[in-house]
Amino acid sequence: MNELEHWMRHALALAAKGRGSVEPNPMVGAVVLDAAGRLAGEGWHQTFGGPHAEVFALSSAGERARGGTLVVTLEPCCHHGKTPPCTDAVLRAGIVRVVVAMADPFPKVAGGGIALLRAAGVEVHVGLCEADAVALNAPYLKLLRTGRPWVHLKWAMTLDGKIATWTGDSKWISGEESRRRVHELRGRVDAIIVGRGTVVADDPLLTARPPGPRAPARVVLSASGELPERCQLRTTARSVGSDTGGPVIVYTANADKLVGWAADGADVVALGDGVSLDAVLADLGRRRFTNVLIEGGAGLLGSAFDERVGDEFHVFVAPKLIGGTAAPAPLGGLGVQQMADAVALDRVTSEPFGADVYIHGFAPRGGQSAGPPVTG
Amino acid sequence: MNELEHWMRHALALAAKGRGSVEPNPMVGAVVLDAAGRLAGEGWHQTFGGPHAEVFALSSAGERARGGTLVVTLEPCCHHGKTPPCTDAVLRAGIVRVVVAMADPFPKVAGGGIALLRAAGVEVHVGLCEADAVALNAPYLKLLRTGRPWVHLKWAMTLDGKIATWTGDSKWISGEESRRRVHELRGRVDAIIVGRGTVVADDPLLTARPPGPRAPARVVLSASGELPERCQLRTTARSVGSDTGGPVIVYTANADKLVGWAADGADVVALGDGVSLDAVLADLGRRRFTNVLIEGGAGLLGSAFDERVGDEFHVFVAPKLIGGTAAPAPLGGLGVQQMADAVALDRVTSEPFGADVYIHGFAPRGGQSAGPPVTG
Ligand SMILES: NC(=O)c1ccc[n+]([C@@H]2O[C@H](COP(=O)([O-])OP(=O)(O)OC[C@H]3O[C@@H](n4cnc5c(N)ncnc54)[C@H](OP(=O)(O)O)[C@@H]3O)[C@@H](O)[C@H]2O)c1
Ligand SMILES: NC(=O)c1ccc[n+]([C@@H]2O[C@H](COP(=O)([O-])OP(=O)(O)OC[C@H]3O[C@@H](n4cnc5c(N)ncnc54)[C@H](OP(=O)(O)O)[C@@H]3O)[C@@H](O)[C@H]2O)c1
Repeated sequence: MNELEHWMRHALALAAKGRGSVEPNPMVGAVVLDAAGRLAGEGWHQTFGGPHAEVFALSSAGERARGGTLVVTLEPCCHHGKTPPCTDAVLRAGIVRVVVAMADPFPKVAGGGIALLRAAGVEVHVGLCEADAVALNAPYLKLLRTGRPWVHLKWAMTLDGKIATWTGDSKWISGEESRRRVHELRGRVDAIIVGRGTVVADDPLLTARPPGPRAPARVVLSASGELPERCQLRTTARSVGSDTGGPVIVYTANADKLVGWAADGADVVALGDGVSLDAVLADLGRRRFTNVLIEGGAGLLGSAFDERVGDEFHVFVAPKLIGGTAAPAPLGGLGVQQMADAVALDRVTSEPFGADVYIHGFAPRGGQSAGPPVTG
Repeated sequence: MNELEHWMRHALALAAKGRGSVEPNPMVGAVVLDAAGRLAGEGWHQTFGGPHAEVFALSSAGERARGGTLVVTLEPCCHHGKTPPCTDAVLRAGIVRVVVAMADPFPKVAGGGIALLRAAGVEVHVGLCEADAVALNAPYLKLLRTGRPWVHLKWAMTLDGKIATWTGDSKWISGEESRRRVHELRGRVDAIIVGRGTVVADDPLLTARPPGPRAPARVVLSASGELPERCQLRTTARSVGSDTGGPVIVYTANADKLVGWAADGADVVALGDGVSLDAVLADLGRRRFTNVLIEGGAGLLGSAFDERVGDEFHVFVAPKLIGGTAAPAPLGGLGVQQMADAVALDRVTSEPFGADVYIHGFAPRGGQSAGPPVTG
């Protein structure tokens, strides 16, 4: 590994520290090397709306940046957004060389930052560790490209592949460590999505406990609109906060049935014909949600599988057996006909989580929209 | 760890080399230390009917055994079986101290070996690493205690908990490494057991490929006796050998329907009312089968779970998704009502096997009849 690659990997690791705090912005990390190639400054984009990685890195380097190199995971911006253009800061600091992992497809940048720097006489290299940079910001890139958020699917099942007993009891399948991991994941996504069946069966609160960097919206899908009159989601819909939970959004084809929910503060969104997952994801994308987590139940997860909307999979396998032909499996829906049509996950890892095994992987898409786990 | 414990662990590791070759005998390992406590000889019981571990260890030590210590995982035998009593060999070799992990409950020994040695003036210690010795020979001990073989349950499922698509296709769920592991397991057990459904759906041969130390009997359970007229098990029933497979045994309540199978060489066993797993296991125990493997399908595995006959579980989880409410899960049957009644496995390990994860554990029985995996 050469020197610059070493520093780019370091910048990528810095970038990942922003996960959960910067979205819908991309995660970005930067390193400044002085004229002799020694580390002079570093930084990362820390919060949405806050200073960009380059600004932190350049200001920590100070005068040592002059004649030096900026190593940055994403093309510097050249437009006035929530902060002034980073290209200005780069030129002002006297940087003579910029090494960028990938261009930023964001329409107001899209190569403009690179062109501007080159026009000002700065030497610019693009593409070092590009695949890793693309993987890191896969959710950001997917949202830009498709208008849909990155979709995490999560389930916890027994060693005999069940998510509840035949009577519907599911407390608890997985152990404490696994549940803690799920709450960590919840605290970094923009929305937690469940189907009507889960609201009816479990009356969930859908918060991250303890809270993470963001309070995810709590999303329910119910074409019928047949939701309980009293349940935790409804009673807490108005008290939005990191402890009490994010806003409640209900997608339905029967908004009439949910007047009470709307009165109690839920955002009731009427979708035309039934509640298609794509329509839901398009609406969440318009809200600039970058990562969403579908938690269940089997009906909704089954649709998500049948419509191939999942990008990243989080499965907890508990070493317990419950048996029962009538006990539900994690994915309902239709499923594939032949093993040859099975969806083989990509970049699969497994690790023990307490007594459970946590298996993590990505949808197979030739790596196009794939990315690393939301918690890295 | 003191010196003797070190040597006992070594003897236990030697003993395990006999796995698959010595049953229905126990696995036994032995180490001889000379009068100064240095390793003088070692050995293990290698094949059923062959010399015992002590004989190998003493003969490799020769004259250096005189005044020395024998460290052995099981009480030396004191009866004429297929070989002369080991106690004779111990006394003849001039051993002055014997350290034994556990007494042998085999009726013709049952403390007699220890008593005989003590009466002859040998110092005998019993109980070093006893728990490990008990775990090592759990199948042997279960057969002696209950008259039933140790029952391994195995299944391969997708990451969404299915053993076949909704159309019944299951080739292949798991990858090559996992299937190799299953064949290794097959080659060390006394019988592979399947239900009628699996014979009808898959027409399996039920052999270990490549062959292992034993050619397991191929056992089918079918109360109805409605088995195919032509299938691999029936056509190969007579050609018994390590390549072609072990004998075929069919347990049924309708032997009339299986006259053709019997004529072709299958051992058709009529059981009274239905085909209860306990009656099957009792019959296999009478044949001195020590380890049996129930491979499926969901119907039979479900019964095995509902009747709690499983001792050891081998589960392969493949990182593939097939979905489908109608796709079968590994365990049929009734199942438990509440999560509180779930069967939590004991001493669970998980390891990657190619792309799959192999999760292995034991039935929770306070360790009584539990033991190590058949392939260690
Ligand atoms: N172990 C775990 O990880 C876990 C996690 C969550 C839940 N669970 C368990 O799962 C069970 C609930 O599962 P479930 O299958 O009955 O209910 P579900 O998947 O939570 O909800 C299904 C319902 O969602 C609505 N829906 C709206 N749009 C949909 C779409 N595009 N695709 C699918 N559904 C859509 C439908 O209701 P409408 O008729 O109103 O349209 C449908 O009946 C509970 O027993 C719960 O305890 C387990
Ligand atoms: N992925 C895997 O690891 C794996 C392994 C094996 C099979 N499979 C799949 O599993 C499917 C077959 O499963 P299945 O559930 O239909 O059939 P099964 O479990 O193989 O056989 C069930 C049949 O066994 C007979 N039986 C006799 N005594 C029994 C007892 N005590 N308990 C339960 N059954 C007893 C019954 O037939 P009678 O009516 O004659 O009594 C019963 O219908 C196939 O699709 C196969 O491909 C998958």
